Amino acid sequence: MTPVVETLLAHRSIRKFEDKPLTEEQVAVIIDCARAASSSSFIQCTSIIRVVDKEKRRLLAEYAGNQAYVADAAEFFVWCLDFNRHLQIKPDAQLGFTEQTLIGAIDTALMAQNALAAAESMGLGGVYIGGIRNNPDKVSALLNLPDYVAPLFGLCLGYPAQDPEVKPRLPASLIVHTDEYQAVDKEELAEYDEIVRHYYRTRTGGTKEMTWSEQIDGTLGKEARPFMKAFIESKGLSTK
Amino acid sequence: MTPVVETLLAHRSIRKFEDKPLTEEQVAVIIDCARAASSSSFIQCTSIIRVVDKEKRRLLAEYAGNQAYVADAAEFFVWCLDFNRHLQIKPDAQLGFTEQTLIGAIDTALMAQNALAAAESMGLGGVYIGGIRNNPDKVSALLNLPDYVAPLFGLCLGYPAQDPEVKPRLPASLIVHTDEYQAVDKEELAEYDEIVRHYYRTRTGGTKEMTWSEQIDGTLGKEARPFMKAFIESKGLSTK
Repeated sequence: MTPVVETLLAHRSIRKFEDKPLTEEQVAVIIDCARAASSSSFIQCTSIIRVVDKEKRRLLAEYAGNQAYVADAAEFFVWCLDFNRHLQIKPDAQLGFTEQTLIGAIDTALMAQNALAAAESMGLGGVYIGGIRNNPDKVSALLNLPDYVAPLFGLCLGYPAQDPEVKPRLPASLIVHTDEYQAVDKEELAEYDEIVRHYYRTRTGGTKEMTWSEQIDGTLGKEARPFMKAFIESKGLSTK
Repeated sequence: MTPVVETLLAHRSIRKFEDKPLTEEQVAVIIDCARAASSSSFIQCTSIIRVVDKEKRRLLAEYAGNQAYVADAAEFFVWCLDFNRHLQIKPDAQLGFTEQTLIGAIDTALMAQNALAAAESMGLGGVYIGGIRNNPDKVSALLNLPDYVAPLFGLCLGYPAQDPEVKPRLPASLIVHTDEYQAVDKEELAEYDEIVRHYYRTRTGGTKEMTWSEQIDGTLGKEARPFMKAFIESKGLSTK
């Protein structure tokens, strides 16, 4: 087991932080690790908005569904797919392809995961904030994001002030398929559901008991940010 | 500098591999690291197709634009966003939202980057294969991917049989914006362009000299997989 493996396996999201800043050197190392990730066809279509302004942090916390740690964390980064940079270099760039949105989402996530892993290896903790997609228009206006730029997710980083358990994930047998797609093994799913139920029970002192399947039933029983298609297209993305 | 930071900063894509298999234990650790990544709202919408069959590997190499290492690498994984698993659990799941495609692309990439970092820390190397998106229909048919599953990218892993340089990325000053989006600093871009030109010149013995801006001019001067929108929608994804 390498130190990298140890760090990655120990990951759990941190939502409570000490009131202690990161040094600029720490931030620089974290960003350098993000930059080192692979980039599809060397396109480099990611921008990171580092939000320092306290009022903007307060508003982002609100936009994300009142997640106080967005305001409280030592650092908060908004990860964006960005083809506007290319447009500034090449005003007749062919943009708007769904393929480019996919590249942007994938490559931006590769970079962010490097950032989080680097931070965790330095004794820091963090949590991704998908909640900024609750109000993509407002986030976009607040950060002055131009066309062909879309905010994908936030990342809080700081010194952990909590020590949560690692959350049990779907077993490898359910997510790795050999040579072709295989249907869900219902027995393995039932076993995993019990593991998740136990995790919630012990974590909440018995106030929450829920299997993964029950959680999915709730999450996918309702619409998923139905305004996202219009928002993405309003930025000039995925129009073709 | 932690061992994690060292590993991440040393990343370069490996496209030539020794003829030496990974152990099942190595594969299991790599997959476990992938599983440990964050999952938006605990949806867990990733499937990994591990392609062992030699004929399928040969075909995937061809589909990806004749990239021989897809066939030759010790391991080849196709990373898919997968909402079919949820449909098997909840037949009336509300699917097809653009938001779900974004979550799928982001979360799958977070997992894959953990896998690659873990592998690199074990002395292995790898390269992402976006080229499988050249022929998403054929890849999908070959791997028997059902509706609501889309192949996003491949990942070759194995023991490196080459030792390429680390490729210079856009400087932090050009990708990190403070509090709001900032236009490209043309002087910094010019400096970076020279660094890239030098990288290619020394790497190719002078046969290729190209700045990053020139490369972007070529890449974004043409359409980007214009069939991707129809493919994604054919899978039931991003229809609303």
